[in-house]
Amino acid sequence: MIVSETKIRVRYGETDQMGYAYYGIYAQYYEVGRVDAMRVLGFSYKEVEDRGIMMPVLEYNIKYKKPAYYDDELTIVTRITEMPTGVKVNFEYECFNQHGDLLNTGFVTLAIIDKATNKLCKLPGWFSSAMRKFF
Amino acid sequence: MIVSETKIRVRYGETDQMGYAYYGIYAQYYEVGRVDAMRVLGFSYKEVEDRGIMMPVLEYNIKYKKPAYYDDELTIVTRITEMPTGVKVNFEYECFNQHGDLLNTGFVTLAIIDKATNKLCKLPGWFSSAMRKFF
Amino acid sequence: MIVSETKIRVRYGETDQMGYAYYGIYAQYYEVGRVDAMRVLGFSYKEVEDRGIMMPVLEYNIKYKKPAYYDDELTIVTRITEMPTGVKVNFEYECFNQHGDLLNTGFVTLAIIDKATNKLCKLPGWFSSAMRKFF
Amino acid sequence: MIVSETKIRVRYGETDQMGYAYYGIYAQYYEVGRVDAMRVLGFSYKEVEDRGIMMPVLEYNIKYKKPAYYDDELTIVTRITEMPTGVKVNFEYECFNQHGDLLNTGFVTLAIIDKATNKLCKLPGWFSSAMRKFF
Repeated sequence: MIVSETKIRVRYGETDQMGYAYYGIYAQYYEVGRVDAMRVLGFSYKEVEDRGIMMPVLEYNIKYKKPAYYDDELTIVTRITEMPTGVKVNFEYECFNQHGDLLNTGFVTLAIIDKATNKLCKLPGWFSSAMRKFF
Repeated sequence: MIVSETKIRVRYGETDQMGYAYYGIYAQYYEVGRVDAMRVLGFSYKEVEDRGIMMPVLEYNIKYKKPAYYDDELTIVTRITEMPTGVKVNFEYECFNQHGDLLNTGFVTLAIIDKATNKLCKLPGWFSSAMRKFF
Repeated sequence: MIVSETKIRVRYGETDQMGYAYYGIYAQYYEVGRVDAMRVLGFSYKEVEDRGIMMPVLEYNIKYKKPAYYDDELTIVTRITEMPTGVKVNFEYECFNQHGDLLNTGFVTLAIIDKATNKLCKLPGWFSSAMRKFF
Repeated sequence: MIVSETKIRVRYGETDQMGYAYYGIYAQYYEVGRVDAMRVLGFSYKEVEDRGIMMPVLEYNIKYKKPAYYDDELTIVTRITEMPTGVKVNFEYECFNQHGDLLNTGFVTLAIIDKATNKLCKLPGWFSSAMRKFF
C-alpha cells in the first residue's frame, strides 16, 4: 500500500459565507494529496506529465462529515490500496483537522493517458516498477 | 420532478495546464445549477438562508466522460427527482457542451440545517409546499 | 473607444466568511470582461490564442469601494480607451451591482506575445485593423 | 519593519491553459503572506476577526515579471514598512520562485473596520502595541 500525509492550511479565500471551507475546494486538497502520494514513488506528477503520461480524473466522490474552518490545519491522508492492473489508478482519502476529527472521506479514479496518442494506456514500466515495491 | 437548465461559459482561470476545465470547478457549476433549480420553486438560495435554513453538502459525486475547454458554453441540467421526506435533498446532474456532448454526470446530497439550532431538520412548510407542486 | 458590458452573478463559492465576494475573484470577473471586449472586435480570445498570440497580464490594479454579496448581479464595464501602439494593451474597468452602486474600479495591462517566438510583439495586422475602426 | 516569508507550492488547479499559475491566484498567495506577517506579531488573522476587527482590502496592485509554473515552490516575502497611523495598513510583496527569480511585486492596502459598528477605525491598542515593537 502507498500512504502519504499532506498538511494544508485553509486559506481565507477558500471559505464561504457559511464560514466553512467551501465544499468544492477539497478537489484541490485531494489533488495535492495525490501529488504527495506520487512523491513517495520517487517522482513528481510534473515529471509524469513530462514523461508523456497525463492522468485526468474519471470519477471523484466525497462524503462530508464535519466542516473545516478558516486557518484550520488539515491532514489529507491519501492511499493507493491496490496495484493498478488496467488503465486506471484509484486513490482513497481521509481528511482530518488539527483536533483529529475526521472531516471527510473520498476517492478519486484517474485515467492513464498516453499524451502521444491521447488514448488510454496501462502504466508505463518506470511507473509500475516504482509502484510494485509497495505491494 | 424539478428540472432546470443553466448556461455557464468556461472562464480562462478555470482551465488547467492540460487545457481542460479543471476537474474541481464543476462543484461550482453544479452549485449554480442548484440555485437555478431552487429559483424554479420561486425563491433564491439566498432567501433560503435568510429564512433560517442552511444547506451544506453531505455528498458529492461526479463521473467525467469528456473534458470541457476554455470558452465552451456548458449546459448544466439539474434535477430533483424525488420529493424529500427526511433531512436531505438530492440533486442529479448532467453537463453538456455546446455540441450536445455529455461531459459529466453527478449528484449532490444536501443536508437541511436549522440555523437557529444548528441541527438537521425537515424542510420547513414554505419550502416543502413549494416543492410539492412538482411531484 | 471600445466598451463592453458583462453580467456576472456572484457564486456561493466565490464568497468568503466575511460574507463578501472574495477580493481575489475580481481577477476572473475582469478577465471575463476582457473576453467580451474582444468579442466586440469580432473574435474571441480563444481565436487570438489559436492565431498565435498569447496575452499574459503585466499589471493588475483594483480599488475596492463597496463589497459584492452572494447572488448579486454585477455589471463589469470594460473599456479600451486608446489604440495600442506598442507591445501592450490596456483595459479599464468599473464594476457595478444591481442597484447601480460602483463597487470597484481597476485596470489590467496585457502583454502581446508571439507564441512562435515567445517574445513581445506588436498587434498583428488582423487584430489592429479590427481595433482601428473604434478609434 | 515587519517581514515574513511564506512558502507556497503551485497547485495543478491553479495553473491555466497557458501553463502558468493563473494571474488571479496571487491574491490568495498574498493573503496567505499577510496572515504570516500577522503571526510575526503574535496572533493570527482569525484572532483579529474574533476580537472584533475586520480587514477588507481597499486596494490591490501586482506587477508580473515572470510566470510561475505547476509545482514551483514560491516564496512570498511580505513587508509592513511603516507603522499604521490611520485607518489603513499597507503590505508590500515580492514573490520569488525556487531559482530565486523575482516573479512579481505588489502591494495591498487593508481597511481597519470595527465589526460592532461596521465603520473604519484605528488599530485597537492590543494590535498597535504589538506592532510598535517592530518600528
